[in-house]
Amino acid sequence: MFSFGNFLTLSTFGESHGEAYGGIIQNVPAGLNIDFKAIQHQLNRRRPGQSSLVTQRKESDTVTFLSGIFEGRTTGTPIGFLIRNEDQKPKDYQHLADTYRPSHADFTYEQKYGIRDYRGGGRSSARETLNWVAAGALAKQLIPEVQIQAYVSSVGEIFCEKPYQELDLSKTDNSEIRCPDPHTAARMTAEVKRIKKEGNTIGGTITCVVRNLPAGIGEPVFGKLQAELAKAMMNINAAKGFEYGSGFCGAKMTGAEHNDIFNPDFTTKTNLSGGIQGGISNGMDVYFRVAFKPVATLLRPQPSVDRDGQPVTLEGRGRHDACVVPRAVPIVENLAAFVLADLMLINKLRTF
Amino acid sequence: MFSFGNFLTLSTFGESHGEAYGGIIQNVPAGLNIDFKAIQHQLNRRRPGQSSLVTQRKESDTVTFLSGIFEGRTTGTPIGFLIRNEDQKPKDYQHLADTYRPSHADFTYEQKYGIRDYRGGGRSSARETLNWVAAGALAKQLIPEVQIQAYVSSVGEIFCEKPYQELDLSKTDNSEIRCPDPHTAARMTAEVKRIKKEGNTIGGTITCVVRNLPAGIGEPVFGKLQAELAKAMMNINAAKGFEYGSGFCGAKMTGAEHNDIFNPDFTTKTNLSGGIQGGISNGMDVYFRVAFKPVATLLRPQPSVDRDGQPVTLEGRGRHDACVVPRAVPIVENLAAFVLADLMLINKLRTF
Amino acid sequence: MFSFGNFLTLSTFGESHGEAYGGIIQNVPAGLNIDFKAIQHQLNRRRPGQSSLVTQRKESDTVTFLSGIFEGRTTGTPIGFLIRNEDQKPKDYQHLADTYRPSHADFTYEQKYGIRDYRGGGRSSARETLNWVAAGALAKQLIPEVQIQAYVSSVGEIFCEKPYQELDLSKTDNSEIRCPDPHTAARMTAEVKRIKKEGNTIGGTITCVVRNLPAGIGEPVFGKLQAELAKAMMNINAAKGFEYGSGFCGAKMTGAEHNDIFNPDFTTKTNLSGGIQGGISNGMDVYFRVAFKPVATLLRPQPSVDRDGQPVTLEGRGRHDACVVPRAVPIVENLAAFVLADLMLINKLRTF
Amino acid sequence: MFSFGNFLTLSTFGESHGEAYGGIIQNVPAGLNIDFKAIQHQLNRRRPGQSSLVTQRKESDTVTFLSGIFEGRTTGTPIGFLIRNEDQKPKDYQHLADTYRPSHADFTYEQKYGIRDYRGGGRSSARETLNWVAAGALAKQLIPEVQIQAYVSSVGEIFCEKPYQELDLSKTDNSEIRCPDPHTAARMTAEVKRIKKEGNTIGGTITCVVRNLPAGIGEPVFGKLQAELAKAMMNINAAKGFEYGSGFCGAKMTGAEHNDIFNPDFTTKTNLSGGIQGGISNGMDVYFRVAFKPVATLLRPQPSVDRDGQPVTLEGRGRHDACVVPRAVPIVENLAAFVLADLMLINKLRTF
Repeated sequence: MFSFGNFLTLSTFGESHGEAYGGIIQNVPAGLNIDFKAIQHQLNRRRPGQSSLVTQRKESDTVTFLSGIFEGRTTGTPIGFLIRNEDQKPKDYQHLADTYRPSHADFTYEQKYGIRDYRGGGRSSARETLNWVAAGALAKQLIPEVQIQAYVSSVGEIFCEKPYQELDLSKTDNSEIRCPDPHTAARMTAEVKRIKKEGNTIGGTITCVVRNLPAGIGEPVFGKLQAELAKAMMNINAAKGFEYGSGFCGAKMTGAEHNDIFNPDFTTKTNLSGGIQGGISNGMDVYFRVAFKPVATLLRPQPSVDRDGQPVTLEGRGRHDACVVPRAVPIVENLAAFVLADLMLINKLRTF
Repeated sequence: MFSFGNFLTLSTFGESHGEAYGGIIQNVPAGLNIDFKAIQHQLNRRRPGQSSLVTQRKESDTVTFLSGIFEGRTTGTPIGFLIRNEDQKPKDYQHLADTYRPSHADFTYEQKYGIRDYRGGGRSSARETLNWVAAGALAKQLIPEVQIQAYVSSVGEIFCEKPYQELDLSKTDNSEIRCPDPHTAARMTAEVKRIKKEGNTIGGTITCVVRNLPAGIGEPVFGKLQAELAKAMMNINAAKGFEYGSGFCGAKMTGAEHNDIFNPDFTTKTNLSGGIQGGISNGMDVYFRVAFKPVATLLRPQPSVDRDGQPVTLEGRGRHDACVVPRAVPIVENLAAFVLADLMLINKLRTF
Repeated sequence: MFSFGNFLTLSTFGESHGEAYGGIIQNVPAGLNIDFKAIQHQLNRRRPGQSSLVTQRKESDTVTFLSGIFEGRTTGTPIGFLIRNEDQKPKDYQHLADTYRPSHADFTYEQKYGIRDYRGGGRSSARETLNWVAAGALAKQLIPEVQIQAYVSSVGEIFCEKPYQELDLSKTDNSEIRCPDPHTAARMTAEVKRIKKEGNTIGGTITCVVRNLPAGIGEPVFGKLQAELAKAMMNINAAKGFEYGSGFCGAKMTGAEHNDIFNPDFTTKTNLSGGIQGGISNGMDVYFRVAFKPVATLLRPQPSVDRDGQPVTLEGRGRHDACVVPRAVPIVENLAAFVLADLMLINKLRTF
Repeated sequence: MFSFGNFLTLSTFGESHGEAYGGIIQNVPAGLNIDFKAIQHQLNRRRPGQSSLVTQRKESDTVTFLSGIFEGRTTGTPIGFLIRNEDQKPKDYQHLADTYRPSHADFTYEQKYGIRDYRGGGRSSARETLNWVAAGALAKQLIPEVQIQAYVSSVGEIFCEKPYQELDLSKTDNSEIRCPDPHTAARMTAEVKRIKKEGNTIGGTITCVVRNLPAGIGEPVFGKLQAELAKAMMNINAAKGFEYGSGFCGAKMTGAEHNDIFNPDFTTKTNLSGGIQGGISNGMDVYFRVAFKPVATLLRPQPSVDRDGQPVTLEGRGRHDACVVPRAVPIVENLAAFVLADLMLINKLRTF
């Protein structure tokens, strides 16, 4: 209970300032040649301290695989992996032992469990996404034909107005902000720098595009492709919304506008459906968008309360991003890869 | 695999023109007095033919409980239930055996399974939500203290501009359109009638508000409260998007604007968090919004293709809603109830 | 939670004197032509009242499939089925409302749930195995190449001394007692009649042989083939023990005696392993044995207690078997079929 | 899929000569003070090289907990743990790369996966039980009131004839062979030494007694207490059979002999039921017996085949036990603890 995935599963553990993060990936088919560099590359994309825009926590975030792989190939048995925490500074967090930070999980964890590891947010830290990126990057290798590309589509009020079809998504990593449109990327970067200087933070959205997904992927009732993707994305720290295809805009449209008319080859003239009908992929591009709130930790004083409800002022120490979306791009992509690999495996059992 | 819920689970079956829908609810605690009328009331709210706005399919949608309840009380064993289809007109659908309707699941089911029950969409029909409403309405009785109220917050371009706090949500069912603001309800109703007259359909959104949910509900990593809600809602037919709290708007904000500052009693001055921090409820209202696309079946001719890719013209027969959101209100509420009952049960095991 | 199967799953409901039994089978591949008669045949084999040896409860035990099958073929969607109770005589059981029968589940259900459906044992009745036989008989059709044959290998002290290789297992149903050796069958039958005349009951064992199971079936650590079979069998009412291959006798042997030496074609010279190594089938026959205790309901007076601990005398009314094993033969076979179909489906995903 | 447990779950990984074993325990309630020494003590009891009877592989088998525990107490989040392999001698096993050992899993793993880690059996090694002992010993601390005691009840033909009630089970570890009856222990020990001298191995049985288990534990249909125990035990390497209460002997008895008559306090005069009725504990002792085959690795030459079916002679190198049962005693106990802790947690949700 509360692992990730249906057939292909990921169980994880770890706290921000514990010894290590890690996980177990189960039900990977045997015989896959693992490209370890490709996995580490995804972790590196997520790593803090890559640019001036993001947190300066310095860790190598190196993943070690401990089992399930023999002479470079998967054996079909569980794949255990470990990512050690290297930059633990628990003392940085002692002052938080009795304080609840606004819009953090300090209060809710304590309400739920009666105890919490307050060091860097403990289990609530987004460092957990390390595990997801490692597992997703491995799962991606099960479905090499599928292309999954995410990018920052907005920062604050600055939107990348071009539709994804007009962008060269191979250029996403060319800018620190991970927007493939250079002009918009420059504006977004300037905005984050401005916000950061104020000790403030800002939200944004990520768009993800999946190409070459075959038709037939997704389960029709309780495992709809969009629901599996939504669940995965809404589990990312700071995610506030999910939409696919026409999304919230589709709710303003009429059926005559919204219906995707078939071509003779079963592609559709438009793709407001976002490549999914009845929870199952139709062979067109799947695309979705995830909204992220601004990071709650500010580098300026904020009023809050302690465990007794007494007012305290938070100084905003620690190491945090002014805008989370650039680092969330590989999280979105690799989570999506895990969801799709899981559903594609399952789909192999849907017919004789 | 592919049941609903984590501890409290629902497995379902049924096709639009099969003999019956039904399901099994497992792990309901023993000793609950079941209010059968309250369950049937929720099914009646979802039933077609209630007003001039919605489909005229005539069925009683009566649920029969077959097990797990003895002398009106749950026994702790699986609760089987059945809802017979009464208005099956399979011949209405013979013309669809070889045709793919645009923006329906005809093509994707056939791609996935190589076979499909084409009568009224078969398993892809939204009639399946009968099962969810029945199960959710029962689950709701496990958590009587929690108040769950959904309403139509937009139809097409017409939005209910008032925040939910200014609406009397007990009045939602007073209008056919299920918007608690009478003025907006009238405008929405007129819009749907206009659209219907054109043989067209229109989308909309539903807002759901959960009050009196205790703090501590939701699982911190792969079972975040918002992710469980998102998954449930995105499994509803026609759902295109989900957001909670500040949602997509939150992605435009700064941290200084967005953070919810604590009061001394641990309530918060604002509630952009939507009552959830770190995937766990904080005791404030949980609220979320779901976007629904316009119904794909139009009562006017549409071009499409048959199984050979040959062009056909669809005449738009059958019985369908011009706007799905009024009938989706009880679906959203009862699904939310199931999600919350499940997580509230699990939460009882989080501490000694 | 608490469904049966891993990928191919069965959820069930029903009580002995409720309206109906039923279940949902999920994840059956699409396109299977269902042989309904073969399924009903298995239910008929399990049905009471077939011979003078077993209970005279008169019901047709007819299964109706409600979904997931279109024009005789599976569609890949959940298969709901229903078996109505026809011979409900709840009044027969009113006297048990406040009484605990010895070696029944009356006391334990009440301890667990604080409430129980006392009519015929409610959920604890072996009538639930109807559901398993129906689902297993359908699952069997997924693996037609595998031959699964069970038979009564002992009744009380009377054992079928011949090894299964010397028996013609196609003759099992020739005798009421379901022992394929005519001489032993006659002795067993006489013994059951003698016991029955005394108002007593007697235990027995069932041996099950699986032929033509390909090598590679079973999951190596927590889903070992023998463990999955053991779990299934130990869930049958009255089962007290499970062994496979050499079983308990193997615990007396030395390695030099017990090891199965390979032939050049990878068959083995002996098969004390019971066709399983490391939890995975090796292509040899899988065989196992299940012990069943004597039925607890006696048709003669027995001392017991009521809910207050006061002594009562049970008269032994109701309808019960003097020996459960003949009717358990189809239960064992069809449960085994379900386990094997589940693991064989899963095994398709173990390599690329 | 293929984790252990229903609500309290254990996922594991590891191979005999990989870097490490490890696992993740999920859903442990928060606030439990962990006794780390008690856990390590159980691992030490299982450790090889403890006596002249068992394999001399030298490893500390030290478990390290990496998460989910803060300042000595569980936080409610996943508990990751690691046990490093220290005595890896992969070269010892190079000769097995192309050879199938009789009654080992070499052949079946290769049939299943097309690839295998042949070093020391890889994933099929009983070293995996390290993970189970670590997790079970932690789970045991959730249910301190329950007493779980296993002992060796037979080695080959030598049986401990006394019923468990006449044994002082606190003395089990006094003998290397782990039989609490000193006289029988001496005979068993002599037998194992004799067998070992011959380069041979021998099987045996373990009896496990659970005292102070409250009534009401176990799930009535697919999660019967005996079935959950059977599954756990039959997953242990070399296990060939499971029985509880009267077990296989019960199959020879009549109902009049076998029924456990109630006392006025709801205890029973006899306990052939083994403390379980209808899959649910009744408050009496639960006891069961597990049969183990003789270890397949012999320290003398054996004929076998290579991957091409060509005859080879195995020399019987490596480090192995002449009799597995003494070291299996803590495995049985700790697995049972995990099963019981899982079911006891779940039982808390069975009533309001």
